[in-house]
Amino acid sequence: MRSHEAGARHGAGDTPAWLMVPDDVNALMRELWPVTAGKSDDGVLHVGGLSVAEIAAQVGTPAVILDEVDFRARAAAFRDAFAAAFAPLGGAEVSYAGKALLARGIAGWLDEDGLGLDVCSGGELAIALAGGLDASRMTLHGNYKTDATIRAALRAGIGRIAVDSSYEIGQVARIAADEDVVAPVWIRVRVGVEAHTHDYIATAHEDQKFGLSVHDGSAMAAARRVVATPQVDLRGLHIHIGSQIFDSEGLREATRRLFGLHTAIGRELGVWAPEMGLGGGFGVAYTTGHDPLGPEELAAQMAQGVGALARDSGVAPPRICVEPGRAIAGPAGFTLYTVGPVKRVALDGGFTRHYVAVDGGMSDNIRTALYGADYSATLASRRSDAPPVLSRVVGTHCESGDIVVKDEYLPADIGPGDLLAVPVTGAYCYPLASNYNQVLRPPVVAVRDGVIRPLIRRERLEDRLALDCG
Amino acid sequence: MRSHEAGARHGAGDTPAWLMVPDDVNALMRELWPVTAGKSDDGVLHVGGLSVAEIAAQVGTPAVILDEVDFRARAAAFRDAFAAAFAPLGGAEVSYAGKALLARGIAGWLDEDGLGLDVCSGGELAIALAGGLDASRMTLHGNYKTDATIRAALRAGIGRIAVDSSYEIGQVARIAADEDVVAPVWIRVRVGVEAHTHDYIATAHEDQKFGLSVHDGSAMAAARRVVATPQVDLRGLHIHIGSQIFDSEGLREATRRLFGLHTAIGRELGVWAPEMGLGGGFGVAYTTGHDPLGPEELAAQMAQGVGALARDSGVAPPRICVEPGRAIAGPAGFTLYTVGPVKRVALDGGFTRHYVAVDGGMSDNIRTALYGADYSATLASRRSDAPPVLSRVVGTHCESGDIVVKDEYLPADIGPGDLLAVPVTGAYCYPLASNYNQVLRPPVVAVRDGVIRPLIRRERLEDRLALDCG
Repeated sequence: MRSHEAGARHGAGDTPAWLMVPDDVNALMRELWPVTAGKSDDGVLHVGGLSVAEIAAQVGTPAVILDEVDFRARAAAFRDAFAAAFAPLGGAEVSYAGKALLARGIAGWLDEDGLGLDVCSGGELAIALAGGLDASRMTLHGNYKTDATIRAALRAGIGRIAVDSSYEIGQVARIAADEDVVAPVWIRVRVGVEAHTHDYIATAHEDQKFGLSVHDGSAMAAARRVVATPQVDLRGLHIHIGSQIFDSEGLREATRRLFGLHTAIGRELGVWAPEMGLGGGFGVAYTTGHDPLGPEELAAQMAQGVGALARDSGVAPPRICVEPGRAIAGPAGFTLYTVGPVKRVALDGGFTRHYVAVDGGMSDNIRTALYGADYSATLASRRSDAPPVLSRVVGTHCESGDIVVKDEYLPADIGPGDLLAVPVTGAYCYPLASNYNQVLRPPVVAVRDGVIRPLIRRERLEDRLALDCG
Repeated sequence: MRSHEAGARHGAGDTPAWLMVPDDVNALMRELWPVTAGKSDDGVLHVGGLSVAEIAAQVGTPAVILDEVDFRARAAAFRDAFAAAFAPLGGAEVSYAGKALLARGIAGWLDEDGLGLDVCSGGELAIALAGGLDASRMTLHGNYKTDATIRAALRAGIGRIAVDSSYEIGQVARIAADEDVVAPVWIRVRVGVEAHTHDYIATAHEDQKFGLSVHDGSAMAAARRVVATPQVDLRGLHIHIGSQIFDSEGLREATRRLFGLHTAIGRELGVWAPEMGLGGGFGVAYTTGHDPLGPEELAAQMAQGVGALARDSGVAPPRICVEPGRAIAGPAGFTLYTVGPVKRVALDGGFTRHYVAVDGGMSDNIRTALYGADYSATLASRRSDAPPVLSRVVGTHCESGDIVVKDEYLPADIGPGDLLAVPVTGAYCYPLASNYNQVLRPPVVAVRDGVIRPLIRRERLEDRLALDCG
């Protein structure tokens, strides 16, 4: 049992309010782990029908382990919840945000499971195409698309391009003309709504790089230009109001403003865009301090909002598109590390902290240092009867900010050779991974029914030397 | 002319106190650029005898460009300043901190120029060895060294291993016995001095992962154990008190404490360690808000401190080792980008900000987002007569925190196709680079006397696909 209230930190000896001494330091916080994960009586963590000891023996550590069943169940839950909630309105579709975690194998799952995909670069597009996903199910996002990326997307038959600036409308039209196609476009709109979230991952307030502003008229001007340009076809408007969203209030206000623009465009230009992209950013629980909305709640609340806007304005609701990334990949994955040296450090006020070093760190999970993100951890290779002690999981890099888990209670006897698992690392960890200190990036492996399927292999020294010109 | 005072930011419309509207928006802030860099009358930036237009034509953008003359001059300045200042004492040597930026070519420069090298992982060791640097000139650092790394270091004949924990003393001794060698070791010591610096890059206060504490007796206990263990030879004590250090006060206090331990070990155990590692972390100017010490000032102040300690205690000063990384590589490099869409955004209080997108971002420079680091930028491909406007340089990633330069005055007419250069990116940018959004990492090229020498080549999509298991 632990408190579920989020709380602030007040100093080195303090811990976050949600962190409480566990009754059983071996127990998993169920809500943070993939659906097939559990611990056997001997304390060994297993997932996808395999123990982590077997996985570590086969692929080594550190490794990012993805529960395929969990990933696909979350994707299907979003798909079905939004389809059901929006069936009485204009329908809805779900596009996985590939920036959260992408590999050819993942594109294949989306293909089989009937989801769309958001890509943000020529690289993401190329990997998704190589994974067998049809480009018609993809949306190309981004604030700076190169000519080459736009051309590749149009040649592949991209579903839509979300144009982000006035400059880009001309750029897409020029390349579409050159390719002799009409480009389906969304307009990325800035509606001035700030998600209640960490400032660095909030993306809809005015002082930021994305989108065309409703407030200063540039979104409407962009719509006029798109409608007047034969090489581009206005398929919809699009917003994305931030990350780690835990309630739908900000989304509701942002949708109201976007719907207003949609209606104004219809009335002035006679073009009623058939789609509307409401973005993603749906929160996940990294620790017991978070309490996210499930797909059904989220879909119901969003459908309620869109339905009310349609009724009040007498305007038929367009088909809605949402873009979960973290909410699908995040909780489906965890990172498995091998523990190294452990140190007991005396803090002010009589507190002590154990520093538990692991064989990865900020090279495979920079979110702790970058966003001040909280994580949890569990001893994964055995049961311990030692008392829980306040611990900090740190990495192998030559930098004191190299912290993986700031605060967690771990058994006092954890030490070199133990396996440690950090949950909810399926999203935005591997994609932001670096080779800091020439550390080689871990593999990403999917597990299911007792089988390990590598999605991305471990880097080798030869990969580093292949880039080095000698 | 701009003010040199560092200042705080007070809101979206405010700018840092050191940032002032430039008299000439085309002028370079001389102190932020490598020694061979300059602008011609037409406003084009050149370095190493080449214009950036020529460099971009040959290697593309984004690219990290290193002025070889500047890098090697800074390295030689440290080498000579410390040799001269410490000649009347026990001598001194300079070890380049490879984590700042490492490639085989750089190891070759160190070899030719007579510097040592700090490595922190098996990967850094392997690359330095492949670059032809003898292991006897290297020190192996790190809080979690694998058996394989320690074994490789001992086999290569490493200069010293800085042991970081009690556990590691046994680990090194076991592997040394196995290899039938005596391992030369330093003990990494935590002396409780906090550098006046960003908390995430300060590494000597007590609540952190590195070192053995003087305060709680574990450093002395480690020394006793090392002295009692025949497979390890105590060569010295070592501290590193943080990063971006701009005065020597913290270093002086930390050295005093370390010298106390050195003396206590000598008196109790009869072992007078011949070396003493005082770390690096010497600050560089990222903007005109920083005023770093030069190598000569630094060496003189540090020698004065060590000399006084030796005189006062009657103990002969050991040979001093310092480890500059950023101070050598940082100002020798800059990043060249191509500009994409530019947006004018209205801020509160009647301010406006231009968002200038470039073809890189947090994948090639995460320091802005990670540490809140400030940078500057200049239009590099032409002269502009447009007025300077408050601008923010942002990247190509799907994240609003993807900022390269938070605040800079750039010409109002900057736009797609222009080249933009961001100075002082030679250190800790490429090493922390990721493939976020499947963006390919830039090349690192050295320029000298009109010749481009690639140190690290640009990544290709095939490199990404080689890791993807399909």
